[in-house]
Amino acid sequence: MKSSYGDLKEQAWQANLEIPRRGLAIDTFGNVSAFDSERAVFAIKPSGVDYESLKAADMVVVDLDANVVEGTLRPSSDTKTHGALYRAFPGIGGIVHTHSTYATAWAQACPPIPLYGTTHADHLSEDVPCTALMTADAVSRDYEAETGAQIIDCFRARDPRKTPMVLVAGHAPFTWGKTADQAVYHAVVLEELAKIASITRGLDPQARPLPDYLVQKHFERKHGKNAYYGQS
Amino acid sequence: MKSSYGDLKEQAWQANLEIPRRGLAIDTFGNVSAFDSERAVFAIKPSGVDYESLKAADMVVVDLDANVVEGTLRPSSDTKTHGALYRAFPGIGGIVHTHSTYATAWAQACPPIPLYGTTHADHLSEDVPCTALMTADAVSRDYEAETGAQIIDCFRARDPRKTPMVLVAGHAPFTWGKTADQAVYHAVVLEELAKIASITRGLDPQARPLPDYLVQKHFERKHGKNAYYGQS
Amino acid sequence: MKSSYGDLKEQAWQANLEIPRRGLAIDTFGNVSAFDSERAVFAIKPSGVDYESLKAADMVVVDLDANVVEGTLRPSSDTKTHGALYRAFPGIGGIVHTHSTYATAWAQACPPIPLYGTTHADHLSEDVPCTALMTADAVSRDYEAETGAQIIDCFRARDPRKTPMVLVAGHAPFTWGKTADQAVYHAVVLEELAKIASITRGLDPQARPLPDYLVQKHFERKHGKNAYYGQS
Amino acid sequence: MKSSYGDLKEQAWQANLEIPRRGLAIDTFGNVSAFDSERAVFAIKPSGVDYESLKAADMVVVDLDANVVEGTLRPSSDTKTHGALYRAFPGIGGIVHTHSTYATAWAQACPPIPLYGTTHADHLSEDVPCTALMTADAVSRDYEAETGAQIIDCFRARDPRKTPMVLVAGHAPFTWGKTADQAVYHAVVLEELAKIASITRGLDPQARPLPDYLVQKHFERKHGKNAYYGQS
Repeated sequence: MKSSYGDLKEQAWQANLEIPRRGLAIDTFGNVSAFDSERAVFAIKPSGVDYESLKAADMVVVDLDANVVEGTLRPSSDTKTHGALYRAFPGIGGIVHTHSTYATAWAQACPPIPLYGTTHADHLSEDVPCTALMTADAVSRDYEAETGAQIIDCFRARDPRKTPMVLVAGHAPFTWGKTADQAVYHAVVLEELAKIASITRGLDPQARPLPDYLVQKHFERKHGKNAYYGQS
Repeated sequence: MKSSYGDLKEQAWQANLEIPRRGLAIDTFGNVSAFDSERAVFAIKPSGVDYESLKAADMVVVDLDANVVEGTLRPSSDTKTHGALYRAFPGIGGIVHTHSTYATAWAQACPPIPLYGTTHADHLSEDVPCTALMTADAVSRDYEAETGAQIIDCFRARDPRKTPMVLVAGHAPFTWGKTADQAVYHAVVLEELAKIASITRGLDPQARPLPDYLVQKHFERKHGKNAYYGQS
Repeated sequence: MKSSYGDLKEQAWQANLEIPRRGLAIDTFGNVSAFDSERAVFAIKPSGVDYESLKAADMVVVDLDANVVEGTLRPSSDTKTHGALYRAFPGIGGIVHTHSTYATAWAQACPPIPLYGTTHADHLSEDVPCTALMTADAVSRDYEAETGAQIIDCFRARDPRKTPMVLVAGHAPFTWGKTADQAVYHAVVLEELAKIASITRGLDPQARPLPDYLVQKHFERKHGKNAYYGQS
Repeated sequence: MKSSYGDLKEQAWQANLEIPRRGLAIDTFGNVSAFDSERAVFAIKPSGVDYESLKAADMVVVDLDANVVEGTLRPSSDTKTHGALYRAFPGIGGIVHTHSTYATAWAQACPPIPLYGTTHADHLSEDVPCTALMTADAVSRDYEAETGAQIIDCFRARDPRKTPMVLVAGHAPFTWGKTADQAVYHAVVLEELAKIASITRGLDPQARPLPDYLVQKHFERKHGKNAYYGQS
């Protein structure tokens, strides 16, 4: 039977395949979803299936309450976190969760990743934020929904379109974007920022953040009204 | 002549080939065995043979006292350690020994690997334990059997089915699982946990362990009675 | 239509392709240009185009004031920096800008990279210099031209033919050479020097620089009047 | 014309090709030689030729005083160091010089690499030694011959057959073996030991060396009279 979600599942599948290709996860770790805002559903990786055997048809389509709309497999155990973010962050079309090595190390040590240089400022104009550690109370309620709530809380005074990534304390990163592909790109960038920042800190534990005028310059030349980076 | 251990040797061989593929060892370092609990024998890599030239037929089948049951090559010098663990840990069907880089560094520094985050808690609910350093007396007896005894001693108050890995002080890791394949998976996971933990400690030498309520949540959602990770 | 800049664009293109091949940048980061000193133009990577889809015909030919001479795409946003260096440093025929991991970490921490050993002295006889951090004033003028000015200022008392690399504070490295190929080679060398130096400093934060007589010996045997390294 | 050194050149060539394959050097860094003790000549890599274009016929055959016996290219600039070691260390048939990342970092920081664990003890029963830093006087004489003298001096109270590797202070490692292949193997092992040791030291700057009774046990089970590792 032909699926009316074929394109969405294809997008999610392709983006999921980038996870092992880019070295962002071993084994079955990590998951990517692609969102259809008109129909308010997203396609997500099935839980615990390894990337090698994954097919586009395996993607599970769920609504924003994590009810399965199409698919025979159980969706990722992190599905409710994805749903919470799609509901709260208007304009995002894809979400990635990985346990990539350096970003996860920062999430475990849990300071935000300092904005040390222009590689970072090319992508976001503040430190990569880190959520608070979840309380025992929250864990005892609905863990995956609460992970979403934790992230949303961390973005109360932030714009998720300008800061498309977060570290969940003691856990690992989530990134997002206009599309699933862009969310994967942000996951790649985050891992590289996390690695460069950890080496920077090793060289000088007192390394100073980039001055704000340089941050704004780099961020604006790529993302501002008068951006002149790229071809569009 | 057809071997009645063909399947067991095939399993052990395939699992051994994963060691260099996964970057867990250089040259001839490391070895994997696969256990047949009914016949109380296991197939293990021959000693000092490199992975490239290894054939399924080269696997050596030995009993729990390390007597060769089938095979013309000398079994791994660590055979008695494998035998001791199969005897002591009911329900395990495969054992892996590697000198993988980060896990070996922790074994050399020899604190246990702290449970810093959920990547770790997804697999075991305590620090990766490290044995005591072997005494001169023990070394002078039967070194490889004593390595097994050292590990077993370290698990007196632990469940090897819940904590499928250990660091041998001053030496390197051993991991195990229901099958040789799962034991290799645990060796891959351990190396990644060891790497993330060493970066975490570099970022913050005082980094705190994950609170127990988060440890239990993550461990249980994958391994508890009401586990909901994966497809089974 | 046949381009009269075909060779130059081919050189620039080939050199750009080395950037991802050598692991010097992810995604679209980085750019290489090749200079034709007779015609006072250079071919450079178009802005924000990824390496996989890059063609020789995409290279943009510009003059030293960054005016496009040939090409339909927008040149790299760093074009004015390249132009400033070609104008100021006689004899260089290629420039590379990357955000390679270890060199960028040093640029962020911003001490110069100490000359710890002969691997370094084989290529340059002083620390890898780091520019001053750009002032808010300079940023508000012409950022990319000022980046060039910053580097040129750092080379007031230096010979760019003997020290073919620099760290731009808070940003990332630039390297150059007689050809675009040699500039890429210097980018590869710089990343390796940066990595070895960061491990050296990790082993001993008080590690001492190589004595000058050893620096001179190694630099001269490769680059001096009586050089005897290599075949020419 | 058929060379009477065909086999020797082939051995040296094959061993040289392992250098980039094993990730022990970038570009033209590093060199391997293979020794024919009966004819007192060795075949060595030509100076500054990159590995990709290297042919067996390019190998240069020289005598122990570094006079070219066969070959049209200039031999490695380190040829006199190789010659000095072949003359001084009886029984060695191959020498490798690399600037591999971690071993070079230790050579730059220049403490010996501590014997932290059994991976190390499986190969040598003491710290990896580091020579003294060459004096200005020695440099002004014959640099490459003096590098050999420096190493030989460091082995006055050591057995080069038991400790087949050394760090040259401020420079990089040399390794050797019964054959050129074994010398390459030792270069691979040294780089891995250097990496594990640097991570160990990062985890615990006060990490203690392996007790001598464990060192002896591991070294002897592989290299002692009653060795039982491997198949011979």
